[in-house]
Amino acid sequence: MEFTSGQIALLLNGQLEGDSSVSIKMVGKIETASSNQLAFLSNPVYEKHLYTTQAGAVLVKKGFVPKEKVNSTLIFVDDPYASLTFLLKEYDKLSRYSKKGIEQPSQIDDSAIIGSDLYLGAFSYVGKGVNIGNNVKIHPQCYIGERVSIGNNTLIYPGVKIYDGTVIGNDCIIHSGAVLGSDGFGFAPLADGSYDTIPQLGTVTIEDQVSIGANTVIDRATLPGEITLIKKGAKLDNLIQIAHNVVVGNHTVIAAQTGISGSTKIGNRCMFGGQVGIAGHLEIANGTQIAAQAGISKSIKEEKQRVIGYPAFGFTDYFKSYSVFKTLPELSKRITKLELDIHNKNGNK
Amino acid sequence: MEFTSGQIALLLNGQLEGDSSVSIKMVGKIETASSNQLAFLSNPVYEKHLYTTQAGAVLVKKGFVPKEKVNSTLIFVDDPYASLTFLLKEYDKLSRYSKKGIEQPSQIDDSAIIGSDLYLGAFSYVGKGVNIGNNVKIHPQCYIGERVSIGNNTLIYPGVKIYDGTVIGNDCIIHSGAVLGSDGFGFAPLADGSYDTIPQLGTVTIEDQVSIGANTVIDRATLPGEITLIKKGAKLDNLIQIAHNVVVGNHTVIAAQTGISGSTKIGNRCMFGGQVGIAGHLEIANGTQIAAQAGISKSIKEEKQRVIGYPAFGFTDYFKSYSVFKTLPELSKRITKLELDIHNKNGNK
Amino acid sequence: MEFTSGQIALLLNGQLEGDSSVSIKMVGKIETASSNQLAFLSNPVYEKHLYTTQAGAVLVKKGFVPKEKVNSTLIFVDDPYASLTFLLKEYDKLSRYSKKGIEQPSQIDDSAIIGSDLYLGAFSYVGKGVNIGNNVKIHPQCYIGERVSIGNNTLIYPGVKIYDGTVIGNDCIIHSGAVLGSDGFGFAPLADGSYDTIPQLGTVTIEDQVSIGANTVIDRATLPGEITLIKKGAKLDNLIQIAHNVVVGNHTVIAAQTGISGSTKIGNRCMFGGQVGIAGHLEIANGTQIAAQAGISKSIKEEKQRVIGYPAFGFTDYFKSYSVFKTLPELSKRITKLELDIHNKNGNK
Repeated sequence: MEFTSGQIALLLNGQLEGDSSVSIKMVGKIETASSNQLAFLSNPVYEKHLYTTQAGAVLVKKGFVPKEKVNSTLIFVDDPYASLTFLLKEYDKLSRYSKKGIEQPSQIDDSAIIGSDLYLGAFSYVGKGVNIGNNVKIHPQCYIGERVSIGNNTLIYPGVKIYDGTVIGNDCIIHSGAVLGSDGFGFAPLADGSYDTIPQLGTVTIEDQVSIGANTVIDRATLPGEITLIKKGAKLDNLIQIAHNVVVGNHTVIAAQTGISGSTKIGNRCMFGGQVGIAGHLEIANGTQIAAQAGISKSIKEEKQRVIGYPAFGFTDYFKSYSVFKTLPELSKRITKLELDIHNKNGNK
Repeated sequence: MEFTSGQIALLLNGQLEGDSSVSIKMVGKIETASSNQLAFLSNPVYEKHLYTTQAGAVLVKKGFVPKEKVNSTLIFVDDPYASLTFLLKEYDKLSRYSKKGIEQPSQIDDSAIIGSDLYLGAFSYVGKGVNIGNNVKIHPQCYIGERVSIGNNTLIYPGVKIYDGTVIGNDCIIHSGAVLGSDGFGFAPLADGSYDTIPQLGTVTIEDQVSIGANTVIDRATLPGEITLIKKGAKLDNLIQIAHNVVVGNHTVIAAQTGISGSTKIGNRCMFGGQVGIAGHLEIANGTQIAAQAGISKSIKEEKQRVIGYPAFGFTDYFKSYSVFKTLPELSKRITKLELDIHNKNGNK
Repeated sequence: MEFTSGQIALLLNGQLEGDSSVSIKMVGKIETASSNQLAFLSNPVYEKHLYTTQAGAVLVKKGFVPKEKVNSTLIFVDDPYASLTFLLKEYDKLSRYSKKGIEQPSQIDDSAIIGSDLYLGAFSYVGKGVNIGNNVKIHPQCYIGERVSIGNNTLIYPGVKIYDGTVIGNDCIIHSGAVLGSDGFGFAPLADGSYDTIPQLGTVTIEDQVSIGANTVIDRATLPGEITLIKKGAKLDNLIQIAHNVVVGNHTVIAAQTGISGSTKIGNRCMFGGQVGIAGHLEIANGTQIAAQAGISKSIKEEKQRVIGYPAFGFTDYFKSYSVFKTLPELSKRITKLELDIHNKNGNK
């Protein structure tokens, strides 16, 4: 990040008061910011810091009138906090898309088709028949297998491995160490107790605006023509396992270390906590919320349920049962006492 | 995949009726196949599609007599479905072993011994004293540490990291991001509350026909001469943790995200679901089946048990207890009512 | 490992009796050691093996007098077992720090500052403004992003990916496939049910003497200036998930596949088993012990608690409840019988 205060005012459509050539490299809190940082004043409680801050520039609300002398350059905007957030997003976008060109050594097969503004980091490998859209950024040490297709504006961080035939949409983000298209886990038992490997010939499709976390694995589908499918806008955290032929619905959000077994179909706009496990061949309805560490062994057909436990059931019911679970030793004693009481009565008769 | 219908007939030992020069690139379903796809007709229910299919060729049973005109080339075989499966497996094998030669840049130490038909992808690294068998395929960006030994026909996908001294057998498959031979997790507490790292000087041995999933980690054993051992035919899914000095038995199948702690010995032909956790220094008998997410804190000595829960116990018993667990709030109320009833009686006396 | 028996005696400050030129390549057990191995005799029970062993040299206690003829070279030390452990540690250190120099092809930005005795393996990438201390060993295929700082004596194994701005201390060990600095999992829901990506602009700081296991992921913090922090001496096993803005305290030890959610602060000298899950925005007190697979949904404020379960509570209490859980079907029957008994009495009245 390196802008002048003037450029920032321009970007935010704000009015500048003071020096428009201050170099800004960072954002900071108004009470601790240094001379190359941009701070903001939103909550009046912090106004006192405005008169002592070392910040190079401060975002303040339009119409604000300082009560004392201010040393920092002021930028007047409609909403200082929203402006800061906007600035951070713009800066983030700028820096993520700033790299261009093909670093050497790297390997691109002659048959690959490549859009404009590609960044390909050193030691990356692009196989036969690959098709890469515009403004794609592939960092060092990535592997893009044969016939892989990657849409526009997709970011691929260092060391991602994408097997043959995977299709990736526009505006996706794939983090380091993620593996897309590895073989599904399919083995047929043989008479002698060993296993025969079932060939895995399908592929993986990632739709637009999908995020895939570091070291997450998405296996290819089993049969030719079949796909494992992550739909538009789905967000997958780190270290997740997606087995062969799974479907993850639109805008479904899955936290780290969750595992989804083969052929399970997850609906749209679901939210799963971390370390959730879902058995194979299930259907999970739209809007399902699954608590961290829950184990799902049956399909969930009604939409917008919240479940927890192992095997999982309703959230409220689980916690009611669990609160009794904690008292089980005492409950057990009360039962024994009841039996004695009854027995004594019977004996007393 | 690209064969002529004639080549397919030859490969399947089938009889061709029609055009032997049809180019086949894919398999497809008889109802939706296109002109460069191969379909099959096994279930008579689908026979009607044979007369309208666009498939380039169709596998049918020997002796089958079409009732109407068929546009596709027919290939008569003993068992159309088995033939298709056979074809897929052959095609899969063919394509997985098709690559040969050493891509540049890559690094092979002069002291490495290399068999015939090696494929070494670009940016891969082969260290001192490595010994590689025949027909081994090492994809780009792999690391093969010093003195590693790799048997014949083993497939190593992009980005696998194999530390010094690891021994890998014949016909193994190792998927992207798998790490073999990282340090075991061993630390000795010191008087000041910090930890001393216990040197990890053993190695990892992978026997023949083992599959290792993407991003799975297998740590090296602790002492020199000791090994962490994955026995013949074992199948490990993605994101599994195998700690130092573990033994996994022959033909044991372990689903994704399972973790096995140090020095535990797993028997032969076990089956573990996903996200299972097994404590250290245990012995798990042959044929044990462990349900997904179960936690194993004691050795299992009897063979062929099925366990579940945390800590795990018998499958049927667990579900019986768990069904009562769901009714605990009601059970608790019934106990309170009983106490009141008894109390009232006592009071009534 | 290759020393002469004389060098070993010198290193251990021991007295040699026999041939000082025996070449030692390995350690072995006294009963099975071969002529290029070093054995030790600590427990008198094993003394009989001393007179038949093939070991090239044997460590024995000072003052020990053999009762029979010994073929091996003897090295007399104060504590044979401690000497062996010392030797293994020295050997381990020696071999881990033996590599030097920059292998080609590799990529180092001109602006990077590099200390003495660097090892940089082939296909590794060092970005702009990186600062590397002395005696750092970066194995092949690593990615060191822009402005990353790495302290002295830190070991980075093949294929580690370190994102921009990460700070790593002295004497750290980072295993293959670990990812440091990937984006935190932050998404803001939009009105249409889709999600907006919250820019992740903070960094990761790893203090001195931290170990990070293979394929473990540590996400960067959210806001500029914020950090995800792993404090001095913490030991993280394989496949662990550390979310954005987490703090892991000094000398805390975390077993494999554990996940810690965003902004949670873990105290010093905690010990977590494998597959533990901890929710976000919690505080876990110093010295907390969490059993494997436990799920933590509330802060733990008292120090040195031991917890288990999901959600977790006290260790002893959990096992008491769980032992009753196993008998629930029988308990349920006893309650039904009590109800019948009471009912019958009432009816009898």
